Amino acid sequence: MRPRALLFDVFGTLVDWRSSLVAAGERGGVEADWPAVVDDWRRAYLPALERVRAGRTWRDFDSIHHETLSDVLQRHHLDLPPETSDRLVRGWRELRPWPDVKPGLLALRERYVTATLSNGHVALLVDLLRYGDLRVDAVLSAELAESYKPDPRVYLRGAELLRLPAAEVGMVAAHAWDLREPAALGMRPVFVRRPDEWGGAPVNDPPTELAGLVVVDSLVELAELGELG
Amino acid sequence: MRPRALLFDVFGTLVDWRSSLVAAGERGGVEADWPAVVDDWRRAYLPALERVRAGRTWRDFDSIHHETLSDVLQRHHLDLPPETSDRLVRGWRELRPWPDVKPGLLALRERYVTATLSNGHVALLVDLLRYGDLRVDAVLSAELAESYKPDPRVYLRGAELLRLPAAEVGMVAAHAWDLREPAALGMRPVFVRRPDEWGGAPVNDPPTELAGLVVVDSLVELAELGELG
Repeated sequence: MRPRALLFDVFGTLVDWRSSLVAAGERGGVEADWPAVVDDWRRAYLPALERVRAGRTWRDFDSIHHETLSDVLQRHHLDLPPETSDRLVRGWRELRPWPDVKPGLLALRERYVTATLSNGHVALLVDLLRYGDLRVDAVLSAELAESYKPDPRVYLRGAELLRLPAAEVGMVAAHAWDLREPAALGMRPVFVRRPDEWGGAPVNDPPTELAGLVVVDSLVELAELGELG
Repeated sequence: MRPRALLFDVFGTLVDWRSSLVAAGERGGVEADWPAVVDDWRRAYLPALERVRAGRTWRDFDSIHHETLSDVLQRHHLDLPPETSDRLVRGWRELRPWPDVKPGLLALRERYVTATLSNGHVALLVDLLRYGDLRVDAVLSAELAESYKPDPRVYLRGAELLRLPAAEVGMVAAHAWDLREPAALGMRPVFVRRPDEWGGAPVNDPPTELAGLVVVDSLVELAELGELG
């Protein structure tokens, strides 16, 4: 079975959250080690989702980002006016796509149904895709499964909404943790290297233990591979 | 409050189901009064959704169309081979957009977040939008509320997924029955005249009793209206 649809992780895979948010922090006029603040903010994300999952009430990224930002600012002894914090949280809607993403998604749409599959909520993804002028066929989100990746239900919900068996879906992500569950479900894992995601600091390696893993350096390269055999 | 997002009904409002399906029927090589068959098929749709709603298990358009087609063929004393019926059901994915729709949606995207809000399921809408090369910011469907329009929950789910209050949402449809509930919820009703939806037979009038109703002849005209005051 070959993939007929590709699901794309968004933060880190399609967009460069780090440099965009550091720039937003610096624009705010408050003196701080913004790269360190932003990195800590992003690191707080997966544990925060875990806590929400345990609590059983689904919450969107704006709410989670407000909470984690407030912790991180405290740790960095930063006291921002509320409008500056609000602007940073809204910054997750204005993240630059990696340069290959816009042309890559357009080329991949010729061959595949394309959709996001992000832990971000639909409204945030809509704004983000509009900001980057990124075209996909559907905006799918963990919100539609009321859980978060890597919960298998999120990936299965994506396939279900596209009415495709897992074997006809590929999951595209820059993070190994986001490929293991879909691969276990029978989806095709596609790893995109994003060496600059953390500003040049080491990033995780492709999960080479996964059968059928495809590794590319860009979405344009993925499109040029042709049919995934 | 002015609308920040527009939700679009699809069948009849964005695409011309009738002429496309009549052509699909005629291409099948079976002698029949295809316009009459297709009209009866479409007429069977709302009562079928009502029955499904009463039965409480949500079902997608492919399943509903299969069932209603089989009834309609029987009434018309037509016996089609299963592959011909299947092709007709798949025909709901290959419906021509009205000529104003592609440019109108692009122009409206400049000013509004745009999304479908159809009783069709997400996978069918994705195929249909790809077929017509129609670009919207999100593919929303009654499927995501596990109900059907005109159940208010479907419209509210659309607004919820876009994180907008009802007052900041406009509902665009060619059918009065699809505007009354959203208007009662505080959404802005926009009626698009589609005089050819039923091949020139009378279509329903705009629901002029609704406060703030906007009536246009095309999506291009809607875009040219500028801000809905």
